[in-house]
Amino acid sequence: MPTQPGFLRHLVACNRAEPSDYLPFTIAGTAVGRVRRDIAARLAEFPDLFAVSVHEVALHPGFGDFAARSAALDEAVDRMVKIGLAPKRRNEAYPVAARFTDAPLARLDRGAVATLGVRAYGVHVNGYVRAPDGLALWIGLRARDKLVAPGKLDNLVAGGQPIGLSLTQNLIKECAEEADLPEALARQARAVGAITYAMAVPEGLRADTLFVYDLALDPGFVPRNTDGEIESFALMPVDAVAERLRATDDVKFNVNLVIIDFLIRHGVIAPDHPEYLDLVAGLHRDHPDFWR
Amino acid sequence: MPTQPGFLRHLVACNRAEPSDYLPFTIAGTAVGRVRRDIAARLAEFPDLFAVSVHEVALHPGFGDFAARSAALDEAVDRMVKIGLAPKRRNEAYPVAARFTDAPLARLDRGAVATLGVRAYGVHVNGYVRAPDGLALWIGLRARDKLVAPGKLDNLVAGGQPIGLSLTQNLIKECAEEADLPEALARQARAVGAITYAMAVPEGLRADTLFVYDLALDPGFVPRNTDGEIESFALMPVDAVAERLRATDDVKFNVNLVIIDFLIRHGVIAPDHPEYLDLVAGLHRDHPDFWR
Repeated sequence: MPTQPGFLRHLVACNRAEPSDYLPFTIAGTAVGRVRRDIAARLAEFPDLFAVSVHEVALHPGFGDFAARSAALDEAVDRMVKIGLAPKRRNEAYPVAARFTDAPLARLDRGAVATLGVRAYGVHVNGYVRAPDGLALWIGLRARDKLVAPGKLDNLVAGGQPIGLSLTQNLIKECAEEADLPEALARQARAVGAITYAMAVPEGLRADTLFVYDLALDPGFVPRNTDGEIESFALMPVDAVAERLRATDDVKFNVNLVIIDFLIRHGVIAPDHPEYLDLVAGLHRDHPDFWR
Repeated sequence: MPTQPGFLRHLVACNRAEPSDYLPFTIAGTAVGRVRRDIAARLAEFPDLFAVSVHEVALHPGFGDFAARSAALDEAVDRMVKIGLAPKRRNEAYPVAARFTDAPLARLDRGAVATLGVRAYGVHVNGYVRAPDGLALWIGLRARDKLVAPGKLDNLVAGGQPIGLSLTQNLIKECAEEADLPEALARQARAVGAITYAMAVPEGLRADTLFVYDLALDPGFVPRNTDGEIESFALMPVDAVAERLRATDDVKFNVNLVIIDFLIRHGVIAPDHPEYLDLVAGLHRDHPDFWR
Protein backbone atom coordinates (compact mmCIF):
# COMPACT_ATOMS: atom_id res chain seq x y z
CA MET A 1 0.00 0.00 0.00
CA PRO A 2 1.36 3.45 -0.84
CA THR A 3 1.64 5.79 2.12
CA GLN A 4 -0.49 8.42 0.39
CA PRO A 5 -3.16 7.05 -2.00
CA GLY A 6 -4.08 9.02 -5.09
CA PHE A 7 -3.73 9.20 -8.85
CA LEU A 8 -1.26 12.06 -9.22
CA ARG A 9 1.55 10.15 -7.49
CA HIS A 10 1.76 7.86 -10.54
CA LEU A 11 2.42 10.87 -12.79
CA VAL A 12 5.02 12.16 -10.36
CA ALA A 13 6.76 8.78 -10.41
CA CYS A 14 6.90 8.78 -14.23
CA ASN A 15 8.22 12.34 -14.42
CA ARG A 16 11.03 12.15 -11.89
CA ALA A 17 14.06 13.33 -13.84
CA GLU A 18 16.41 16.24 -13.30
CA PRO A 19 17.30 17.91 -16.61
CA SER A 20 20.71 19.05 -15.40
CA ASP A 21 21.73 15.41 -14.82
CA TYR A 22 21.73 14.85 -18.58
CA LEU A 23 23.67 15.98 -21.65
CA PRO A 24 22.13 16.14 -25.12
CA PHE A 25 22.85 13.18 -27.33
CA THR A 26 23.24 14.58 -30.83
CA ILE A 27 23.46 13.24 -34.34
CA ALA A 28 24.58 15.68 -37.05
CA GLY A 29 23.85 18.60 -34.70
CA THR A 30 20.32 17.47 -33.82
CA ALA A 31 19.51 16.53 -30.22
CA VAL A 32 17.86 13.12 -30.39
CA GLY A 33 18.38 11.97 -26.80
CA ARG A 34 19.64 12.73 -23.32
CA VAL A 35 22.57 10.91 -21.70
CA ARG A 36 23.13 10.96 -17.95
CA ARG A 37 26.50 12.56 -17.13
CA ASP A 38 28.01 9.41 -15.58
CA ILE A 39 27.02 7.44 -18.68
CA ALA A 40 28.52 10.15 -20.89
CA ALA A 41 31.83 9.72 -19.05
CA ARG A 42 31.80 6.00 -19.86
CA LEU A 43 30.91 6.62 -23.52
CA ALA A 44 34.02 8.81 -23.76
CA GLU A 45 35.92 5.52 -23.61
CA PHE A 46 34.74 4.94 -27.22
CA PRO A 47 36.16 7.95 -29.13
CA ASP A 48 35.80 6.06 -32.42
CA LEU A 49 32.00 6.15 -31.89
CA PHE A 50 31.22 9.18 -29.73
CA ALA A 51 32.58 12.71 -29.37
CA VAL A 52 31.93 13.52 -25.72
CA SER A 53 32.33 17.09 -24.45
CA VAL A 54 31.05 18.94 -21.38
CA HIS A 55 28.13 20.11 -23.53
CA GLU A 56 27.01 16.99 -25.34
CA VAL A 57 27.49 13.42 -26.41
CA ALA A 58 27.69 13.49 -30.20
CA LEU A 59 27.67 10.48 -32.44
CA HIS A 60 31.01 10.73 -34.23
CA PRO A 61 30.50 13.06 -37.22
CA GLY A 62 32.37 10.62 -39.44
CA PHE A 63 29.19 8.54 -39.66
CA GLY A 64 27.48 10.48 -42.41
CA ASP A 65 24.24 8.71 -43.30
CA PHE A 66 21.48 6.51 -41.89
CA ALA A 67 23.27 3.23 -42.62
CA ALA A 68 26.63 4.32 -41.20
CA ARG A 69 25.04 5.84 -38.09
CA SER A 70 22.93 2.75 -37.50
CA ALA A 71 25.95 0.46 -37.84
CA ALA A 72 27.91 2.67 -35.42
CA LEU A 73 25.07 2.58 -32.89
CA ASP A 74 24.82 -1.18 -33.30
CA GLU A 75 28.48 -1.52 -32.41
CA ALA A 76 27.87 0.87 -29.52
CA VAL A 77 25.06 -1.35 -28.21
CA ASP A 78 27.41 -4.35 -28.07
CA ARG A 79 29.97 -2.38 -26.10
CA MET A 80 27.36 -0.79 -23.82
CA VAL A 81 25.92 -4.20 -22.97
CA LYS A 82 29.44 -5.51 -22.38
CA ILE A 83 30.34 -2.82 -19.83
CA GLY A 84 26.91 -2.90 -18.19
CA LEU A 85 25.51 0.40 -19.52
CA ALA A 86 22.62 -1.38 -21.24
CA PRO A 87 20.85 -4.44 -19.79
CA LYS A 88 20.75 -6.57 -22.95
CA ARG A 89 20.07 -6.47 -26.66
CA ARG A 90 16.32 -6.66 -27.40
CA ASN A 91 16.63 -7.29 -31.15
CA GLU A 92 14.00 -4.71 -31.93
CA ALA A 93 15.07 -1.61 -33.88
CA TYR A 94 13.70 1.75 -32.79
CA PRO A 95 13.85 4.97 -34.81
CA VAL A 96 16.20 7.76 -33.66
CA ALA A 97 14.81 11.23 -34.40
CA ALA A 98 14.08 14.51 -32.64
CA ARG A 99 10.36 14.24 -33.40
CA PHE A 100 8.02 11.37 -34.15
CA THR A 101 7.19 12.50 -37.67
CA ASP A 102 10.79 13.34 -38.61
CA ALA A 103 12.67 10.95 -40.87
CA PRO A 104 14.87 8.85 -38.55
CA LEU A 105 18.56 9.73 -38.50
CA ALA A 106 19.47 6.17 -37.43
CA ARG A 107 18.07 3.00 -35.92
CA LEU A 108 18.92 1.78 -32.42
CA ASP A 109 18.28 -1.48 -30.60
CA ARG A 110 15.50 -1.09 -28.05
CA GLY A 111 17.83 -2.36 -25.32
CA ALA A 112 19.94 0.82 -25.47
CA VAL A 113 17.20 3.40 -26.06
CA ALA A 114 17.09 4.45 -22.39
CA THR A 115 20.91 4.50 -22.12
CA LEU A 116 21.03 7.19 -24.80
CA GLY A 117 17.74 8.75 -23.66
CA VAL A 118 16.29 8.50 -27.15
CA ARG A 119 12.59 9.28 -27.42
CA ALA A 120 10.57 6.10 -27.71
CA TYR A 121 6.98 5.54 -28.72
CA GLY A 122 4.38 2.91 -28.08
CA VAL A 123 0.75 1.99 -28.69
CA HIS A 124 -1.58 1.21 -25.78
CA VAL A 125 -5.14 -0.04 -26.16
CA ASN A 126 -7.85 0.36 -23.52
CA GLY A 127 -10.15 -2.57 -24.27
CA TYR A 128 -13.49 -1.80 -22.67
CA VAL A 129 -16.99 -3.21 -22.47
CA ARG A 130 -20.07 -1.09 -22.01
CA ALA A 131 -22.11 -3.33 -19.71
CA PRO A 132 -25.64 -2.55 -18.47
CA ASP A 133 -24.22 -1.68 -15.04
CA GLY A 134 -21.39 0.50 -16.37
CA LEU A 135 -18.01 0.38 -18.07
CA ALA A 136 -15.54 -2.45 -17.56
CA LEU A 137 -11.90 -2.66 -18.65
CA TRP A 138 -9.96 -5.69 -19.83
CA ILE A 139 -6.80 -5.79 -17.72
CA GLY A 140 -3.83 -8.05 -18.41
CA LEU A 141 -1.54 -9.64 -15.82
CA ARG A 142 2.05 -9.40 -17.10
CA ALA A 143 4.07 -12.60 -17.13
CA ARG A 144 6.40 -13.12 -14.15
CA ASP A 145 9.43 -13.45 -16.44
CA LYS A 146 9.04 -10.05 -18.15
CA LEU A 147 12.16 -7.87 -18.04
CA VAL A 148 10.11 -4.77 -17.20
CA ALA A 149 7.39 -4.77 -14.53
CA PRO A 150 6.86 -8.55 -14.14
CA GLY A 151 3.57 -9.53 -12.50
CA LYS A 152 2.08 -6.05 -12.85
CA LEU A 153 -1.29 -5.21 -14.39
CA ASP A 154 -1.36 -3.96 -17.98
CA ASN A 155 -3.63 -2.69 -20.74
CA LEU A 156 -5.39 -5.16 -23.06
CA VAL A 157 -2.69 -4.46 -25.65
CA ALA A 158 0.54 -2.47 -25.40
CA GLY A 159 3.73 -2.51 -27.39
CA GLY A 160 6.71 -0.44 -28.40
CA GLN A 161 6.85 1.27 -31.78
CA PRO A 162 9.63 -0.21 -33.92
CA ILE A 163 11.14 1.48 -36.95
CA GLY A 164 9.50 0.81 -40.29
CA LEU A 165 5.92 0.18 -39.16
CA SER A 166 3.13 2.73 -39.20
CA LEU A 167 1.20 3.18 -35.96
CA THR A 168 -1.75 1.33 -37.46
CA GLN A 169 0.43 -1.56 -38.66
CA ASN A 170 1.99 -1.84 -35.21
CA LEU A 171 -1.42 -1.63 -33.54
CA ILE A 172 -2.68 -4.53 -35.65
CA LYS A 173 0.46 -6.58 -34.98
CA GLU A 174 0.34 -6.02 -31.21
CA CYS A 175 -3.41 -6.69 -31.06
CA ALA A 176 -2.80 -10.08 -32.69
CA GLU A 177 0.21 -11.02 -30.52
CA GLU A 178 -1.02 -9.78 -27.18
CA ALA A 179 -4.75 -10.46 -27.26
CA ASP A 180 -5.48 -12.55 -30.38
CA LEU A 181 -7.60 -9.76 -31.87
CA PRO A 182 -8.41 -10.17 -35.58
CA GLU A 183 -7.30 -7.28 -37.80
CA ALA A 184 -10.87 -6.12 -38.48
CA LEU A 185 -11.43 -5.70 -34.74
CA ALA A 186 -8.05 -4.00 -34.18
CA ARG A 187 -8.95 -1.47 -36.87
CA GLN A 188 -11.99 -0.47 -34.82
CA ALA A 189 -9.68 0.88 -32.10
CA ARG A 190 -10.07 4.65 -31.96
CA ALA A 191 -7.03 6.92 -31.56
CA VAL A 192 -7.85 9.16 -28.60
CA GLY A 193 -4.63 10.99 -27.75
CA ALA A 194 -1.11 10.54 -26.46
CA ILE A 195 0.67 10.55 -23.11
CA THR A 196 4.20 11.80 -22.54
CA TYR A 197 6.61 11.38 -19.67
CA ALA A 198 10.33 11.61 -18.94
CA MET A 199 11.47 9.25 -16.23
CA ALA A 200 14.89 8.73 -14.70
CA VAL A 201 15.68 5.00 -14.67
CA PRO A 202 18.86 3.18 -13.58
CA GLU A 203 19.93 2.71 -17.20
CA GLY A 204 19.35 6.37 -18.15
CA LEU A 205 16.16 8.15 -19.23
CA ARG A 206 12.84 6.84 -20.47
CA ALA A 207 11.47 9.64 -22.67
CA ASP A 208 8.29 7.96 -23.77
CA THR A 209 5.24 8.91 -25.76
CA LEU A 210 2.32 6.48 -25.67
CA PHE A 211 -0.27 6.69 -28.42
CA VAL A 212 -3.55 5.75 -26.79
CA TYR A 213 -6.46 3.89 -28.38
CA ASP A 214 -9.89 2.95 -27.03
CA LEU A 215 -11.46 -0.25 -28.30
CA ALA A 216 -15.10 -1.03 -27.48
CA LEU A 217 -15.59 -4.79 -27.21
CA ASP A 218 -18.70 -6.95 -27.13
CA PRO A 219 -19.57 -8.46 -23.76
CA GLY A 220 -19.01 -11.94 -25.19
CA PHE A 221 -15.45 -11.27 -26.40
CA VAL A 222 -12.60 -12.88 -24.44
CA PRO A 223 -8.97 -11.94 -25.25
CA ARG A 224 -6.24 -14.57 -25.38
CA ASN A 225 -2.50 -13.88 -25.22
CA THR A 226 -0.42 -15.57 -27.92
CA ASP A 227 3.14 -14.38 -27.23
CA GLY A 228 3.54 -15.35 -23.56
CA GLU A 229 3.82 -11.76 -22.38
CA ILE A 230 0.47 -11.79 -20.55
CA GLU A 231 -0.37 -14.52 -18.03
CA SER A 232 -4.12 -13.88 -17.93
CA PHE A 233 -6.80 -11.30 -18.65
CA ALA A 234 -9.64 -10.15 -16.40
CA LEU A 235 -12.61 -7.89 -17.10
CA MET A 236 -12.80 -5.42 -14.21
CA PRO A 237 -15.52 -2.84 -13.45
CA VAL A 238 -14.07 0.60 -14.10
CA ASP A 239 -14.64 1.77 -10.52
CA ALA A 240 -12.66 -1.21 -9.22
CA VAL A 241 -9.85 -0.37 -11.65
CA ALA A 242 -9.88 3.25 -10.45
CA GLU A 243 -9.67 2.18 -6.82
CA ARG A 244 -6.83 -0.24 -7.62
CA LEU A 245 -4.86 2.61 -9.20
CA ARG A 246 -5.66 5.02 -6.41
CA ALA A 247 -4.76 2.71 -3.55
CA THR A 248 -2.05 0.34 -4.84
CA ASP A 249 1.03 0.05 -7.03
CA ASP A 250 -0.25 -3.12 -8.71
CA VAL A 251 -0.38 -1.57 -12.17
CA LYS A 252 2.69 -1.14 -14.42
CA PHE A 253 4.13 2.34 -13.89
CA ASN A 254 3.17 3.86 -17.26
CA VAL A 255 -0.09 1.92 -17.63
CA ASN A 256 -1.35 3.86 -14.62
CA LEU A 257 -1.13 6.98 -16.81
CA VAL A 258 -2.96 5.39 -19.74
CA ILE A 259 -5.80 4.25 -17.47
CA ILE A 260 -5.99 7.60 -15.63
CA ASP A 261 -6.40 9.25 -19.04
CA PHE A 262 -9.19 6.74 -19.81
CA LEU A 263 -10.88 7.46 -16.48
CA ILE A 264 -10.77 11.21 -17.23
CA ARG A 265 -12.05 10.90 -20.79
CA HIS A 266 -14.91 8.67 -19.67
CA GLY A 267 -15.96 10.87 -16.76
CA VAL A 268 -15.01 8.33 -14.08
CA ILE A 269 -12.65 10.80 -12.41
CA ALA A 270 -14.90 13.86 -12.09
CA PRO A 271 -13.72 17.37 -12.99
CA ASP A 272 -14.13 18.61 -9.41
CA HIS A 273 -11.67 15.97 -8.15
CA PRO A 274 -8.89 17.92 -6.38
CA GLU A 275 -6.22 16.29 -8.58
CA TYR A 276 -8.14 16.70 -11.87
CA LEU A 277 -6.39 19.69 -13.44
CA ASP A 278 -2.93 18.49 -12.38
CA LEU A 279 -3.72 15.10 -13.88
CA VAL A 280 -4.90 16.59 -17.18
CA ALA A 281 -1.79 18.78 -17.47
CA GLY A 282 0.59 16.14 -16.14
CA LEU A 283 -0.43 13.45 -18.62
CA HIS A 284 0.65 15.67 -21.50
CA ARG A 285 3.83 17.37 -20.35
CA ASP A 286 6.10 18.47 -23.17
CA HIS A 287 9.18 18.71 -20.91
CA PRO A 288 10.63 21.91 -22.30
CA ASP A 289 13.67 21.61 -20.01
CA PHE A 290 14.65 18.48 -21.87
CA TRP A 291 13.49 19.17 -25.35
CA ARG A 292 13.29 22.86 -26.20
CA MET B 1 -7.78 33.08 -44.79
CA PRO B 2 -4.76 32.59 -42.55
CA THR B 3 -1.42 32.72 -44.30
CA GLN B 4 -0.43 29.28 -42.96
CA PRO B 5 -3.33 26.85 -42.44
CA GLY B 6 -3.18 24.38 -39.60
CA PHE B 7 -4.49 23.52 -36.17
CA LEU B 8 -1.50 24.39 -34.00
CA ARG B 9 -1.67 28.11 -34.84
CA HIS B 10 -4.88 28.34 -32.76
CA LEU B 11 -3.03 27.04 -29.70
CA VAL B 12 -0.18 29.45 -30.33
CA ALA B 13 -2.67 32.34 -30.52
CA CYS B 14 -4.23 31.36 -27.18
CA ASN B 15 -0.87 30.99 -25.45
CA ARG B 16 0.81 34.23 -26.50
CA ALA B 17 1.82 35.82 -23.22
CA GLU B 18 5.21 36.83 -21.88
CA PRO B 19 5.50 35.96 -18.17
CA SER B 20 7.92 38.82 -17.45
CA ASP B 21 5.28 41.35 -18.56
CA TYR B 22 3.21 40.50 -15.48
CA LEU B 23 3.43 40.84 -11.71
CA PRO B 24 1.70 38.45 -9.34
CA PHE B 25 -1.61 39.67 -7.95
CA THR B 26 -1.74 38.43 -4.37
CA ILE B 27 -4.32 38.18 -1.63
CA ALA B 28 -3.02 37.38 1.86
CA GLY B 29 0.27 36.23 0.37
CA THR B 30 -1.28 33.87 -2.18
CA ALA B 31 -0.81 34.56 -5.90
CA VAL B 32 -4.28 34.48 -7.42
CA GLY B 33 -3.64 36.43 -10.62
CA ARG B 34 -1.17 38.19 -12.89
CA VAL B 35 -1.28 41.95 -13.57
CA ARG B 36 0.50 43.48 -16.55
CA ARG B 37 3.12 46.00 -15.40
CA ASP B 38 1.46 49.02 -17.00
CA ILE B 39 -1.81 48.09 -15.31
CA ALA B 40 0.02 47.64 -12.00
CA ALA B 41 1.31 51.21 -12.33
CA ARG B 42 -2.27 52.49 -12.71
CA LEU B 43 -3.50 50.41 -9.74
CA ALA B 44 -0.84 52.15 -7.61
CA GLU B 45 -3.13 55.19 -7.87
CA PHE B 46 -5.47 53.37 -5.43
CA PRO B 47 -3.30 52.84 -2.33
CA ASP B 48 -6.40 52.36 -0.19
CA LEU B 49 -7.13 49.19 -2.21
CA PHE B 50 -3.81 47.86 -3.53
CA ALA B 51 -0.23 47.72 -2.25
CA VAL B 52 1.84 47.86 -5.43
CA SER B 53 5.56 47.10 -5.34
CA VAL B 54 8.11 46.12 -7.98
CA HIS B 55 7.42 42.50 -7.04
CA GLU B 56 3.66 42.28 -6.84
CA VAL B 57 0.24 43.86 -6.73
CA ALA B 58 -1.22 42.92 -3.36
CA LEU B 59 -4.79 43.49 -2.29
CA HIS B 60 -4.40 45.80 0.72
CA PRO B 61 -3.78 43.53 3.73
CA GLY B 62 -6.31 45.53 5.73
CA PHE B 63 -9.08 43.56 4.01
CA GLY B 64 -9.02 40.51 6.22
CA ASP B 65 -11.78 38.17 5.13
CA PHE B 66 -13.85 37.06 2.13
CA ALA B 67 -16.51 39.74 2.57
CA ALA B 68 -14.08 42.63 3.06
CA ARG B 69 -11.88 41.51 0.13
CA SER B 70 -14.89 41.10 -2.14
CA ALA B 71 -16.19 44.57 -1.22
CA ALA B 72 -12.73 46.04 -1.88
CA LEU B 73 -12.52 44.33 -5.27
CA ASP B 74 -16.03 45.54 -6.08
CA GLU B 75 -14.95 49.12 -5.41
CA ALA B 76 -11.83 48.43 -7.50
CA VAL B 77 -13.97 47.27 -10.43
CA ASP B 78 -15.87 50.58 -10.41
CA ARG B 79 -12.65 52.54 -10.48
CA MET B 80 -11.01 50.29 -13.09
CA VAL B 81 -14.00 50.66 -15.39
CA LYS B 82 -13.95 54.44 -14.80
CA ILE B 83 -10.31 54.84 -15.86
CA GLY B 84 -10.62 52.37 -18.71
CA LEU B 85 -8.69 49.43 -17.22
CA ALA B 86 -11.74 47.15 -17.46
CA PRO B 87 -14.26 47.28 -20.30
CA LYS B 88 -17.46 47.16 -18.23
CA ARG B 89 -19.08 45.47 -15.28
CA ARG B 90 -20.59 42.10 -16.28
CA ASN B 91 -22.62 41.56 -13.10
CA GLU B 92 -21.43 37.99 -12.78
CA ALA B 93 -19.27 37.10 -9.76
CA TYR B 94 -16.26 34.85 -10.34
CA PRO B 95 -14.27 33.08 -7.62
CA VAL B 96 -10.75 34.32 -6.83
CA ALA B 97 -8.43 31.47 -5.79
CA ALA B 98 -5.05 30.01 -6.66
CA ARG B 99 -6.60 26.68 -7.64
CA PHE B 100 -10.05 25.60 -8.78
CA THR B 101 -10.76 23.42 -5.78
CA ASP B 102 -9.45 25.94 -3.21
CA ALA B 103 -11.98 27.89 -1.17
CA PRO B 104 -12.22 31.32 -2.86
CA LEU B 105 -10.44 34.19 -1.09
CA ALA B 106 -12.82 36.73 -2.66
CA ARG B 107 -15.31 37.23 -5.45
CA LEU B 108 -14.67 39.46 -8.46
CA ASP B 109 -16.91 40.77 -11.23
CA ARG B 110 -16.24 38.92 -14.49
CA GLY B 111 -15.59 42.25 -16.22
CA ALA B 112 -12.32 42.73 -14.31
CA VAL B 113 -11.07 39.14 -14.22
CA ALA B 114 -8.65 39.65 -17.12
CA THR B 115 -7.45 43.02 -15.74
CA LEU B 116 -6.21 41.26 -12.61
CA GLY B 117 -5.29 38.10 -14.53
CA VAL B 118 -7.36 35.95 -12.19
CA ARG B 119 -7.78 32.34 -13.28
CA ALA B 120 -11.22 31.81 -14.80
CA TYR B 121 -13.08 28.62 -15.57
CA GLY B 122 -15.81 27.63 -17.98
CA VAL B 123 -17.84 24.68 -19.23
CA HIS B 124 -17.91 23.80 -22.94
CA VAL B 125 -20.14 21.14 -24.46
CA ASN B 126 -19.41 19.38 -27.75
CA GLY B 127 -22.90 18.37 -28.92
CA TYR B 128 -22.48 15.62 -31.47
CA VAL B 129 -24.56 13.21 -33.51
CA ARG B 130 -23.36 9.78 -34.62
CA ALA B 131 -24.89 9.64 -38.09
CA PRO B 132 -24.64 6.61 -40.42
CA ASP B 133 -22.07 8.46 -42.52
CA GLY B 134 -19.97 9.63 -39.56
CA LEU B 135 -19.86 12.12 -36.71
CA ALA B 136 -21.44 15.56 -36.94
CA LEU B 137 -21.08 18.49 -34.52
CA TRP B 138 -23.67 21.06 -33.55
CA ILE B 139 -22.02 24.46 -34.08
CA GLY B 140 -23.49 27.76 -32.90
CA LEU B 141 -23.13 31.14 -34.60
CA ARG B 142 -22.50 33.78 -31.92
CA ALA B 143 -24.74 36.83 -31.95
CA ARG B 144 -23.31 39.93 -33.70
CA ASP B 145 -23.74 42.02 -30.54
CA LYS B 146 -21.60 39.80 -28.27
CA LEU B 147 -18.82 41.65 -26.44
CA VAL B 148 -16.35 38.84 -27.15
CA ALA B 149 -15.96 37.23 -30.59
CA PRO B 150 -19.21 38.44 -32.23
CA GLY B 151 -20.27 36.46 -35.30
CA LYS B 152 -17.79 33.66 -34.62
CA LEU B 153 -18.63 29.94 -34.47
CA ASP B 154 -19.08 28.36 -31.04
CA ASN B 155 -19.76 25.08 -29.27
CA LEU B 156 -23.34 23.90 -28.70
CA VAL B 157 -23.09 25.22 -25.14
CA ALA B 158 -20.38 27.28 -23.44
CA GLY B 159 -20.40 29.47 -20.39
CA GLY B 160 -18.22 30.95 -17.69
CA GLN B 161 -18.11 29.39 -14.24
CA PRO B 162 -19.55 31.80 -11.64
CA ILE B 163 -18.93 31.55 -7.92
CA GLY B 164 -21.37 29.44 -5.91
CA LEU B 165 -22.40 26.92 -8.56
CA SER B 166 -20.96 23.45 -8.97
CA LEU B 167 -19.74 22.52 -12.44
CA THR B 168 -22.78 20.29 -12.91
CA GLN B 169 -25.19 23.03 -11.79
CA ASN B 170 -23.56 25.47 -14.19
CA LEU B 171 -23.60 22.91 -17.00
CA ILE B 172 -27.35 22.39 -16.53
CA LYS B 173 -27.98 26.17 -16.40
CA GLU B 174 -25.94 26.89 -19.52
CA CYS B 175 -27.48 23.95 -21.42
CA ALA B 176 -30.93 25.41 -20.72
CA GLU B 177 -30.01 29.01 -21.60
CA GLU B 178 -27.87 28.41 -24.65
CA ALA B 179 -29.52 25.44 -26.35
CA ASP B 180 -32.83 24.77 -24.56
CA LEU B 181 -31.62 21.36 -23.35
CA PRO B 182 -33.72 19.76 -20.61
CA GLU B 183 -31.88 18.90 -17.41
CA ALA B 184 -32.13 15.16 -17.99
CA LEU B 185 -30.34 15.56 -21.31
CA ALA B 186 -27.73 17.94 -19.89
CA ARG B 187 -26.91 15.36 -17.23
CA GLN B 188 -25.99 12.90 -19.99
CA ALA B 189 -23.07 15.14 -20.98
CA ARG B 190 -19.84 13.30 -20.16
CA ALA B 191 -16.88 15.10 -18.61
CA VAL B 192 -13.91 14.33 -20.87
CA GLY B 193 -11.11 16.62 -19.72
CA ALA B 194 -10.01 20.22 -19.50
CA ILE B 195 -8.10 22.71 -21.63
CA THR B 196 -5.84 25.42 -20.28
CA TYR B 197 -4.33 28.50 -21.86
CA ALA B 198 -2.82 31.84 -20.86
CA MET B 199 -3.42 34.57 -23.41
CA ALA B 200 -2.31 38.19 -23.43
CA VAL B 201 -5.33 40.41 -24.20
CA PRO B 202 -5.58 44.22 -24.33
CA GLU B 203 -7.22 44.30 -20.89
CA GLY B 204 -4.58 42.02 -19.28
CA LEU B 205 -4.37 38.24 -19.19
CA ARG B 206 -6.92 35.52 -19.87
CA ALA B 207 -5.78 32.58 -17.74
CA ASP B 208 -8.57 30.19 -18.60
CA THR B 209 -9.40 26.58 -17.89
CA LEU B 210 -12.26 25.07 -19.89
CA PHE B 211 -13.93 21.95 -18.54
CA VAL B 212 -14.94 19.96 -21.60
CA TYR B 213 -18.01 17.76 -21.98
CA ASP B 214 -19.20 15.55 -24.86
CA LEU B 215 -22.94 15.15 -25.33
CA ALA B 216 -24.26 12.53 -27.79
CA LEU B 217 -27.55 13.73 -29.30
CA ASP B 218 -30.23 11.94 -31.27
CA PRO B 219 -30.33 12.75 -34.99
CA GLY B 220 -33.80 14.27 -34.52
CA PHE B 221 -32.76 16.72 -31.80
CA VAL B 222 -32.54 20.41 -32.74
CA PRO B 223 -31.10 22.94 -30.26
CA ARG B 224 -32.70 26.35 -29.75
CA ASN B 225 -31.01 29.33 -28.13
CA THR B 226 -33.06 31.07 -25.42
CA ASP B 227 -30.77 33.86 -24.18
CA GLY B 228 -29.95 35.67 -27.43
CA GLU B 229 -26.27 34.75 -27.32
CA ILE B 230 -26.43 32.41 -30.31
CA GLU B 231 -27.98 33.51 -33.60
CA SER B 232 -28.39 30.04 -35.09
CA PHE B 233 -27.17 26.45 -34.85
CA ALA B 234 -26.01 24.17 -37.65
CA LEU B 235 -25.17 20.45 -37.66
CA MET B 236 -21.87 20.10 -39.51
CA PRO B 237 -20.04 16.92 -40.56
CA VAL B 238 -16.95 16.58 -38.43
CA ASP B 239 -14.59 16.63 -41.41
CA ALA B 240 -16.07 19.93 -42.54
CA VAL B 241 -15.60 21.33 -39.04
CA ALA B 242 -11.98 20.17 -39.05
CA GLU B 243 -11.33 21.82 -42.40
CA ARG B 244 -12.99 25.05 -41.20
CA LEU B 245 -10.65 25.13 -38.21
CA ARG B 246 -7.62 24.25 -40.26
CA ALA B 247 -8.16 26.81 -43.01
CA THR B 248 -10.04 29.75 -41.43
CA ASP B 249 -10.37 31.90 -38.34
CA ASP B 250 -14.17 31.61 -38.33
CA VAL B 251 -14.30 29.87 -34.96
CA LYS B 252 -14.04 31.71 -31.62
CA PHE B 253 -10.41 31.68 -30.48
CA ASN B 254 -10.77 29.28 -27.55
CA VAL B 255 -13.49 27.14 -29.14
CA ASN B 256 -10.87 26.11 -31.71
CA LEU B 257 -9.04 24.41 -28.83
CA VAL B 258 -12.14 22.62 -27.54
CA ILE B 259 -12.95 21.29 -31.00
CA ILE B 260 -9.33 20.28 -31.71
CA ASP B 261 -9.45 18.28 -28.48
CA PHE B 262 -12.70 16.66 -29.69
CA LEU B 263 -11.13 15.85 -33.07
CA ILE B 264 -8.17 14.20 -31.32
CA ARG B 265 -10.28 12.21 -28.85
CA HIS B 266 -12.52 10.96 -31.66
CA GLY B 267 -9.67 9.98 -33.97
CA VAL B 268 -10.49 12.61 -36.61
CA ILE B 269 -7.02 14.13 -36.36
CA ALA B 270 -4.85 11.01 -36.70
CA PRO B 271 -1.86 10.34 -34.44
CA ASP B 272 0.61 10.51 -37.35
CA HIS B 273 -0.49 14.08 -38.15
CA PRO B 274 2.69 16.21 -37.95
CA GLU B 275 1.08 18.54 -35.39
CA TYR B 276 -0.45 15.77 -33.25
CA LEU B 277 1.95 15.62 -30.31
CA ASP B 278 2.29 19.40 -30.13
CA LEU B 279 -1.50 19.68 -30.13
CA VAL B 280 -1.89 17.10 -27.36
CA ALA B 281 0.71 18.81 -25.18
CA GLY B 282 -0.37 22.35 -26.09
CA LEU B 283 -4.01 21.86 -25.13
CA HIS B 284 -3.01 21.07 -21.56
CA ARG B 285 -0.18 23.44 -20.73
CA ASP B 286 0.21 24.16 -17.05
CA HIS B 287 2.18 27.38 -17.65
CA PRO B 288 4.77 26.92 -14.92
CA ASP B 289 6.29 30.32 -15.72
CA PHE B 290 3.10 31.94 -14.58
CA TRP B 291 1.91 29.67 -11.84
CA ARG B 292 4.69 27.77 -10.13
